[in-house]
Amino acid sequence: MATQGQVITCKAAVAWEPNKPLTIEDVQVAPPQNGEVRIKILYTALCHTDAYTWSGKDPEGLFPCILGHEAAGIVESVGEGVTEVQPGDHVIPCYQAECGECKFCKSGKTNLCGKVRAATGVGVMLSDRKSRFSINGKPLYHFMGTSTFSQYTVVHDVSVAKIDPKAPLEKVCLLGCGVPTGLGAVWNTAKVEPGSIVAIFDLGTVGLAQRVQKLLGIDIDSKKFERVTEFLNPKEHDKPIQQVIVDLTDGGVDYSFECIGNVSVMRSALECCHKGWGTSVIVGVAASGEEICTRPFQLVTGRVWKGTAFGGFKSRSQVPWLVEKYMNKEIKVDEYITHSLALAEINKAFDLMHEGGCLRCVLAMHE
Amino acid sequence: MATQGQVITCKAAVAWEPNKPLTIEDVQVAPPQNGEVRIKILYTALCHTDAYTWSGKDPEGLFPCILGHEAAGIVESVGEGVTEVQPGDHVIPCYQAECGECKFCKSGKTNLCGKVRAATGVGVMLSDRKSRFSINGKPLYHFMGTSTFSQYTVVHDVSVAKIDPKAPLEKVCLLGCGVPTGLGAVWNTAKVEPGSIVAIFDLGTVGLAQRVQKLLGIDIDSKKFERVTEFLNPKEHDKPIQQVIVDLTDGGVDYSFECIGNVSVMRSALECCHKGWGTSVIVGVAASGEEICTRPFQLVTGRVWKGTAFGGFKSRSQVPWLVEKYMNKEIKVDEYITHSLALAEINKAFDLMHEGGCLRCVLAMHE
Ligand SMILES: NC(=O)c1ccc[n+]([C@@H]2O[C@H](COP(=O)([O-])OP(=O)(O)OC[C@H]3O[C@@H](n4cnc5c(N)ncnc54)[C@H](O)[C@@H]3O)[C@@H](O)[C@H]2O)c1
Ligand SMILES: NC(=O)c1ccc[n+]([C@@H]2O[C@H](COP(=O)([O-])OP(=O)(O)OC[C@H]3O[C@@H](n4cnc5c(N)ncnc54)[C@H](O)[C@@H]3O)[C@@H](O)[C@H]2O)c1
Ligand SMILES: [Zn+2]
Ligand SMILES: [Zn+2]
Ligand SMILES: [Zn+2]
Ligand SMILES: [Zn+2]
Repeated sequence: MATQGQVITCKAAVAWEPNKPLTIEDVQVAPPQNGEVRIKILYTALCHTDAYTWSGKDPEGLFPCILGHEAAGIVESVGEGVTEVQPGDHVIPCYQAECGECKFCKSGKTNLCGKVRAATGVGVMLSDRKSRFSINGKPLYHFMGTSTFSQYTVVHDVSVAKIDPKAPLEKVCLLGCGVPTGLGAVWNTAKVEPGSIVAIFDLGTVGLAQRVQKLLGIDIDSKKFERVTEFLNPKEHDKPIQQVIVDLTDGGVDYSFECIGNVSVMRSALECCHKGWGTSVIVGVAASGEEICTRPFQLVTGRVWKGTAFGGFKSRSQVPWLVEKYMNKEIKVDEYITHSLALAEINKAFDLMHEGGCLRCVLAMHE
Repeated sequence: MATQGQVITCKAAVAWEPNKPLTIEDVQVAPPQNGEVRIKILYTALCHTDAYTWSGKDPEGLFPCILGHEAAGIVESVGEGVTEVQPGDHVIPCYQAECGECKFCKSGKTNLCGKVRAATGVGVMLSDRKSRFSINGKPLYHFMGTSTFSQYTVVHDVSVAKIDPKAPLEKVCLLGCGVPTGLGAVWNTAKVEPGSIVAIFDLGTVGLAQRVQKLLGIDIDSKKFERVTEFLNPKEHDKPIQQVIVDLTDGGVDYSFECIGNVSVMRSALECCHKGWGTSVIVGVAASGEEICTRPFQLVTGRVWKGTAFGGFKSRSQVPWLVEKYMNKEIKVDEYITHSLALAEINKAFDLMHEGGCLRCVLAMHE
């Protein structure tokens, strides 16, 4: 290919400082180094975690940077030593790596991988601890090891899931974060059994992805209620919402999920669980420095407090499997896409996130 | 029997008010009513939970009362409708009931039973919501549905475990609380696998009962260290103890247990767990109103926070099985008995609990 080994200049949305509108810039994307993959991003969605870092509340957030972590694209070129993907492969970049060799990957107990975290956590690539993005020689930080708000990005090979080339990239980009997080929280982290009573705190994408039988949805945006059968709006009750739920469910729910990132809702989610067995899973990312609290008696009497990252899915091995499940109509994805825009309209997409009724907005990167 | 159907007057240690020395009194013990069992207590040990309620820190504590919940004895008589035990049976009174019929018992997910809790929680018997203990007509509250600091006590039939009559009651009384709590926290609640690295916060009876391979014991009483192979004294370190443990264990422990009842130690116990899978179990009972706190990120990155009551053992069905395991030398009990005294010396026994070197003190009730 003509671009292989060359610096590519393309469009990207750059976050210069917290809370300032992103600007579309011509950025230089260096060729992939040893163990790296350069991807042409075709579609990317926005997730609350992008908004979180952009807001300046993320203590790990570094600026200027290129945000974005829920995307799909095609491999443009690969660096030395890359064996598992090649140019032309359809892929989903994964912010949770999977090397298969580290203590975490080999534990059989977690999907977290330790291989590239020390580099991706500080916005650089592992081999030379430098960025592949720059504007006229001035480097821009990577984000979550993915930086998908760029027409081209460079990621570590352990962070690339190769998927079925027949899958529609404008849809399966959602399998890069929100939908697997919701599904996995239910399947892998909580292991919800059929017939369980479940409370989901928020009906955003991550919350709604948790398709379960007896669902009690809790949100403060009543526009979201059309999507579930039973729901509660905390604003319409005087009693603490956990008490309302305990009363309504004869003792509490079997499982609850917090998908907002609000520490007081996390407490409600734990305390609305049934004594003896209720399990609460934290999915939302809270602002830096905030803490969750409860009386220890809540746990001594049998409740369990857990959390989940990417729904416990092993990225490289399970994202392709999720794509297959989508192709076989076993899981839903299309339903969460409420808006589609072009890259140039990214600030509007961020605004939409904070308005009622929006779930996922997908950006077409080359329109 | 001569006493059947009669009021029995016998010796009991009465707690008149918080923190005031107990006094040995002649108390009247009414005959067992429908679904109740009167037990001649032969031996009782003291547990930290007795000291907790006695101290006045327990918001459920009611005075005057008869404390005690770790004991063994012989059934003296039974009330109407009691079919599973009869006079002469050797038994252990159980503060966790097991009715087999309530929502909790039938769930298959917990050892908590809801049958008599509403009565035992307020110091009375279920049938008439009255006490069976009195002094010259003035009632004394029951405690934990057991009140074993009396030569005779009355308990609900769902709270009596019938055991092998060959078992030495002066030893197996410990199977009424401390030893099962420690063993069960490991076996049932955490399900520790062989080879796991485990931290136990405190080397009291409940802590020490957790026999596991790679044990790291943490206590502030260095006299307790002779009992384990590896140990840490938080007082000898400047860094937070969780950081010391994470450094020492290459990332943290697989399981941790808090058996003290100190909320800041509960936090350390969670945070010394390994990212990705470390599980922390709260066993200790904290003072009323105190709260546990941590950053939600601790859970989102894979740590699990749990608690246990009576080690998750189903009392009536599993205490007899634990007695068998003791008789077959599969579990240790004798080792935790460091002192033996008579009922009259009960205040000395409470003093011993707060001194270094004491694990369990067993009181002979009829000497
Ligand atoms: N753990 C992970 O791996 C992971 C992955 C993806 C996203 N996340 C986090 O999950 C959370 C949800 O992400 P999303 O993209 O679905 O967000 P979203 O914007 O689609 O949904 C958030 C929802 O929360 C509702 N809400 C806000 N405050 C509320 C309150 N007090 N009570 C009830 N409802 C309330 C909003 O109305 C909205 O419907 C974010 O915190 C994000 O950072 C975590
Ligand atoms: N969850 C349950 O079902 C259950 C059952 C029994 C007991 N308990 C609780 O378990 C706890 C332990 O009971 P026990 O009878 O074994 O008590 P114990 O008195 O035998 O042991 C307590 C130990 O903690 C140590 N300690 C105190 N402060 C410490 C600190 N800051 N750091 C490290 N070590 C410290 C003491 O030196 C002592 O060795 C109590 O809180 C009790 O109420 C709970
Ligand atoms: Zn996301
Ligand atoms: Zn790995
Ligand atoms: Zn006890
Ligand atoms: Zn029951």
